[in-house]
Amino acid sequence: MIARAPGLKALVASLIVVLAGSLSALAQEALPSWNDTAAKTRIMEFVKATTTEGQDGYVAPADRIAVFDNDGTLWPEQPYYVQLRFVLDRVKVLSPQHPEWKTKEPFKSILEGDLKGLAKGGEKGMVELVMSTHAGMTTDQFAKIVEDWFAKARHPKSGKPFDEMGYLPMRELLDYLRDNGFKTYIVSGGGVEFMRPIVEKAYGIPPEQVVGSTIATEYAIVGDVPVLKRIPKIDFVDDGPGKPAGINKFIGRKPIFVAGNSDGDYQMLRWVTAAKGPGFAMIVHHTDGQREYAYDRKSEFGRLDKALDEAERRNWLVVNMKSDWKKIYAFDQ
Amino acid sequence: MIARAPGLKALVASLIVVLAGSLSALAQEALPSWNDTAAKTRIMEFVKATTTEGQDGYVAPADRIAVFDNDGTLWPEQPYYVQLRFVLDRVKVLSPQHPEWKTKEPFKSILEGDLKGLAKGGEKGMVELVMSTHAGMTTDQFAKIVEDWFAKARHPKSGKPFDEMGYLPMRELLDYLRDNGFKTYIVSGGGVEFMRPIVEKAYGIPPEQVVGSTIATEYAIVGDVPVLKRIPKIDFVDDGPGKPAGINKFIGRKPIFVAGNSDGDYQMLRWVTAAKGPGFAMIVHHTDGQREYAYDRKSEFGRLDKALDEAERRNWLVVNMKSDWKKIYAFDQ
Repeated sequence: MIARAPGLKALVASLIVVLAGSLSALAQEALPSWNDTAAKTRIMEFVKATTTEGQDGYVAPADRIAVFDNDGTLWPEQPYYVQLRFVLDRVKVLSPQHPEWKTKEPFKSILEGDLKGLAKGGEKGMVELVMSTHAGMTTDQFAKIVEDWFAKARHPKSGKPFDEMGYLPMRELLDYLRDNGFKTYIVSGGGVEFMRPIVEKAYGIPPEQVVGSTIATEYAIVGDVPVLKRIPKIDFVDDGPGKPAGINKFIGRKPIFVAGNSDGDYQMLRWVTAAKGPGFAMIVHHTDGQREYAYDRKSEFGRLDKALDEAERRNWLVVNMKSDWKKIYAFDQ
Repeated sequence: MIARAPGLKALVASLIVVLAGSLSALAQEALPSWNDTAAKTRIMEFVKATTTEGQDGYVAPADRIAVFDNDGTLWPEQPYYVQLRFVLDRVKVLSPQHPEWKTKEPFKSILEGDLKGLAKGGEKGMVELVMSTHAGMTTDQFAKIVEDWFAKARHPKSGKPFDEMGYLPMRELLDYLRDNGFKTYIVSGGGVEFMRPIVEKAYGIPPEQVVGSTIATEYAIVGDVPVLKRIPKIDFVDDGPGKPAGINKFIGRKPIFVAGNSDGDYQMLRWVTAAKGPGFAMIVHHTDGQREYAYDRKSEFGRLDKALDEAERRNWLVVNMKSDWKKIYAFDQ
């Protein structure tokens, strides 16, 4: 019977968690940072329809998979991607060991602070730069580098650490979906191992629920200790058509809820909403130049063009940040 | 307030699940199909140590990741891998469309019922054959093919469908770990999309908790419907040194519990037990020729040699199926 004690303890703990979560949920209206506009109504109606047993659109809890792009959907991607900021810092840190970078692109531009040429490569180009500058260490070492970087990095506009830069309405949406039995995943063009150290704190998403771009790793024995070495080889680019492929590979269930903000999410939006049964897609439209950034069709980062053109006829919800969101960040007044 | 109703319903449902699970767990001793030998004691002591708060070896629930090889660890891999059985059937079904297979290896051997040459390629060779014969359809179509096959396939010795071929003591171990807050994953050399349709029923493991070999997929629009096509290109081989890499890629946390049965699990066993903090490794040793199969160092499938040599000095538990397990299958008398 002693062996059952942990089971009992776990039971009590989970009861407390379930009850506490439910009480706090009851104590407040869902999605408090959303204005009472059609966007909020549509989201809540979808959740109600898919979670009400007996209704036509009911979805069993196990199939309630919700996927979220990260850059520009959950946190800002302007003035440029958070991971690009990390890349630039890494290039600067490593440059003394690489004198050849002074004359070699893209390192030359980075060291000279010229980001125009870099940005032309788009999200995929950035991924490649990440791969070429972020290999040669073990996975544990890389996790430490990322954690140390996030501890010091600040967003240039707000001066806040990035785990506070998540859009509050999106964080509430994640919580709301989880309260309703959804399992929430990130599906990002960014590197899986760049996001994992921060997603729990920033979004309440555990590291195993991150789908993203990966570089190859290699098992090796170093001083009789087995490690995984990150090798300079792209394993998978989770962007554009790669996003449905990434979801299929990592999750293996078709999501019923998807949120994105750019044409890099277009294929994922189509794939989710074309599937049999319920499928809800939303696009975060960056319309608030004062509180955040205003951009879409012509942006170097997070260009939203084709997906915006097709949103209406495909019944994708376009969220207008300026009018649909009461607050952008938790630290906003 | 209407929008909160699903939350309440979900709360009640989860309370019922938690309570029912706990009562049924309390009603019976853990691991009933295990004999009262040192193996059972060691497993239970590890679980107690890692789940008892305040103890040195305590592990927070989120970090209680347990990974299980599939073939030979959770279900039989003799007389040959279940997935190879599927491959052979597929080759026969598809052969009328491929007259060239009559003279081309490895198809020729398969069509002639000669498996000796095939087996020499080992698990990796099998994965390659799977890749070359299982592409050209969408992921949805492939899932349907697999489901249809499992509905009819039977193990040659027992005549039972494969979802009943899981080793009962291992199924109990999975339940026991989950009762104690562990998250259980499969980490197999087999194909992810071959296992996913059956793992929930066979092991209580959801499809998103399967790490395995993958083939590449490609996003395509077919008649205005977005699909993922399986293309004949190996994406990842989750065997040997690939297993730690697969765990890192798909899960991103280091497991604290690992079970395997062959040298294909060796690197995964080492990686888990070399990590800082608690790490428990077990090897299922096939010693019961009467109730199951007896094999290790010389087997064509699931060869256990190096891992067996090193088990004692690395403190890996070697489970003796014959003496440690009361029953092998649920259908055993």
